[in-house]
Amino acid sequence: MEFVAAPARLSTADAAFEHDFAQRLHWSADTDAAIEQRVADILADVQARGDAAVLEYTARFDGLSADNLAALELSKDELKAAFDSLPAQQREALEFAARRVRVYHEAQKKANGESWSYRDEDGTLLGQKVTPLDRVGIYVPGGKAAYPSSVLMNAIPAHVAGVPEIIMVVPTPKGEKNALVLAAAYVAGVTRAFTIGGAQAVAALAYGTATVPKVDKITGPGNAYVASAKKRVFGMVGIDMIAGPSEILVLADGTTPPEWVAMDLFSQAEHDELAQSILLCPDAAYIDAVQREIDRLLPEMPRKAIIAKSLTDRGALILTRDMEEACAISNRIAPEHLEVSSRDPHKWEPLLKHAGAIFLGAYTSESLGDYCAGPNHVLPTSGTARFSSPLGVYDFQKRSSIIEVSEAGAQTLGKTAAVLAYGEGLQGHARAAEMRLK
Amino acid sequence: MEFVAAPARLSTADAAFEHDFAQRLHWSADTDAAIEQRVADILADVQARGDAAVLEYTARFDGLSADNLAALELSKDELKAAFDSLPAQQREALEFAARRVRVYHEAQKKANGESWSYRDEDGTLLGQKVTPLDRVGIYVPGGKAAYPSSVLMNAIPAHVAGVPEIIMVVPTPKGEKNALVLAAAYVAGVTRAFTIGGAQAVAALAYGTATVPKVDKITGPGNAYVASAKKRVFGMVGIDMIAGPSEILVLADGTTPPEWVAMDLFSQAEHDELAQSILLCPDAAYIDAVQREIDRLLPEMPRKAIIAKSLTDRGALILTRDMEEACAISNRIAPEHLEVSSRDPHKWEPLLKHAGAIFLGAYTSESLGDYCAGPNHVLPTSGTARFSSPLGVYDFQKRSSIIEVSEAGAQTLGKTAAVLAYGEGLQGHARAAEMRLK
Repeated sequence: MEFVAAPARLSTADAAFEHDFAQRLHWSADTDAAIEQRVADILADVQARGDAAVLEYTARFDGLSADNLAALELSKDELKAAFDSLPAQQREALEFAARRVRVYHEAQKKANGESWSYRDEDGTLLGQKVTPLDRVGIYVPGGKAAYPSSVLMNAIPAHVAGVPEIIMVVPTPKGEKNALVLAAAYVAGVTRAFTIGGAQAVAALAYGTATVPKVDKITGPGNAYVASAKKRVFGMVGIDMIAGPSEILVLADGTTPPEWVAMDLFSQAEHDELAQSILLCPDAAYIDAVQREIDRLLPEMPRKAIIAKSLTDRGALILTRDMEEACAISNRIAPEHLEVSSRDPHKWEPLLKHAGAIFLGAYTSESLGDYCAGPNHVLPTSGTARFSSPLGVYDFQKRSSIIEVSEAGAQTLGKTAAVLAYGEGLQGHARAAEMRLK
Repeated sequence: MEFVAAPARLSTADAAFEHDFAQRLHWSADTDAAIEQRVADILADVQARGDAAVLEYTARFDGLSADNLAALELSKDELKAAFDSLPAQQREALEFAARRVRVYHEAQKKANGESWSYRDEDGTLLGQKVTPLDRVGIYVPGGKAAYPSSVLMNAIPAHVAGVPEIIMVVPTPKGEKNALVLAAAYVAGVTRAFTIGGAQAVAALAYGTATVPKVDKITGPGNAYVASAKKRVFGMVGIDMIAGPSEILVLADGTTPPEWVAMDLFSQAEHDELAQSILLCPDAAYIDAVQREIDRLLPEMPRKAIIAKSLTDRGALILTRDMEEACAISNRIAPEHLEVSSRDPHKWEPLLKHAGAIFLGAYTSESLGDYCAGPNHVLPTSGTARFSSPLGVYDFQKRSSIIEVSEAGAQTLGKTAAVLAYGEGLQGHARAAEMRLK
């Protein structure tokens, strides 16, 4: 069977551009009401019956039976054995990637995640204490989208933050384990791991059961059931963002070999049919060249069916008037991954306001960032880069304000606080401040 | 009518302590299904009909009619006029508080909110760019809980973060405006303000209407309708935490005048009947003294009915074996406000792991922090301090990872990325990395 990858060809100069552009971008995160209801039932059942409910759902949905939930825990020895079983090349690659991810997140913690304080003139101490969460849960998808790199990207920032207990859950349909995923858990220093998944695993982490400890926050990607469950337990525990389909946007000035750009578009499109790959470029001849490389390279790709459907249904090659306009359109999209494939990427970077990660220059393919450059590959999708950030050490820390008002400080602050408290009709607040006045 | 404030008397030495303690702490955030459905309908209606729907709900729920939504916008002149109309004492108190809150949040931004980067040996650049959100919405409750201090605490961190547009919504039932709230908006530098509220205001901010601009994030407290609406639009826009009832926990070593502690407990209890005030102390005689002060001071309090019900239904005076145990119990509660009313607060502070804000020493009454010490008074409630933080500059910023791989870096990173990508069955990723190899 022959596949064709025909991304939409748009031009900002066309009268229909705004309409066509909006249509291409449209994606609805609306969840299925039936899924919502089933998830609500599963959560309630796990909350009520604990281990027994988790075991039943695991048998039913994953075809994996066990006498008790403890039998579904992976021992540290088993994780280590999985690591030892890998070819040397894979072991070294995992350790190399883990080391770079760790170094990057340590720099992040140092730059943005340390406690701070100051004293003002009257001796009053003000600041924030930054501390790690006590225990976090990491959801790792099983089956066809079982990614060891996701284990590293979730567990290492938690580890760097200083979280003492990292609980991983990963479904193993029919008991089939992915050695790379188990090895990654070993390399990343996961504390405990259970072969459970779906809404039942999220429920076990959020409520705790006799066997699975209750966590403070749950991170990691998952299918529609997992996403719905995470959204429901949000507030009782912390969660990271709910991820939509993955996206790449390439801003090209026409100086990168077009086959590199074509392959970068593929590397997003191959994730799934809903993934979105977009090229913005002011050079029509270059766009033609990229399309030719797409046509030439597609037949070689094992995942060509997915790539062809993703590019044809959701991809776009967009001709812009100039690079400035390309940057402006990128800001409207707020892409998850943004490649600035230009000879002069630092000229354009300051114009780019919203993106999960910005990849500068032709050598910085997104795939390097996905695995081992160091920064996190868990990034805001579907335009949420307008208000949210890559997963980071800060997601595994929380802050407590520190205030120590001196006797002298209590005199000036107390008068102001009392005026405002009386103004709000809160006399208890006012009196508490006044009692500290001499 | 006489009111009695009878907080539960517990002792950690009692066999029944764990049971009684759990019962006291129990609070369920479960929302009413009827409210959920009405909110879903309002959101859908505002999304479909925009201004017209907002106008109708404002007329129906707030008794405030207007020909068009533009008529419900407060001009900057009107905000300034409200400020000018205040007594000098209130004007000065607002400006004093705003200045201190600004200085604190500027220090916070400098400590934890600046862009950073480094180059590794092979010239690869890694870091994060920290940028402000473009436009945020601030929800300010109207009616009986209209707090000007909340305007300062939400708007100033946004301003310090560099958010260019801050849109405030505040319901004004029957058109009655609160001069202090409007004045606070003026002092805090709010960009635009609308007298709308409820789920319809949240919808207007999340979806945008012809008159109300769409924002990237919505912060600020509100009633059950507002909380439900915020939870529903989460993901499409950012939100801060969903707040539960306010709480104070006082850790006392018995050296603070007991009337100060009694009044600090009142200052939380007066917020509403669901508010929770707890004292932890190893000194039984001191606990008795605090109860005597509660009895003595209660009749003087204008909000004595609320205080009595809050303390009796949800308050507790807990005798502990020692201060260490008191700290351990505090960590289990993870309170919103934590006063360390001790002669030696720095001895206990390192033992305190989870709290929204920690107030050190007898002079540091919570009310000083609520209004003008500097730190934010929007804090995690209901134990969510285990995993979340005070509102801060970081809530109005987002991060983009920056990666620039050098040609040399692409050689080492590319080999590792290719190994891992092939291991995950993502050949496009692998090929994209390999194309950059020499």
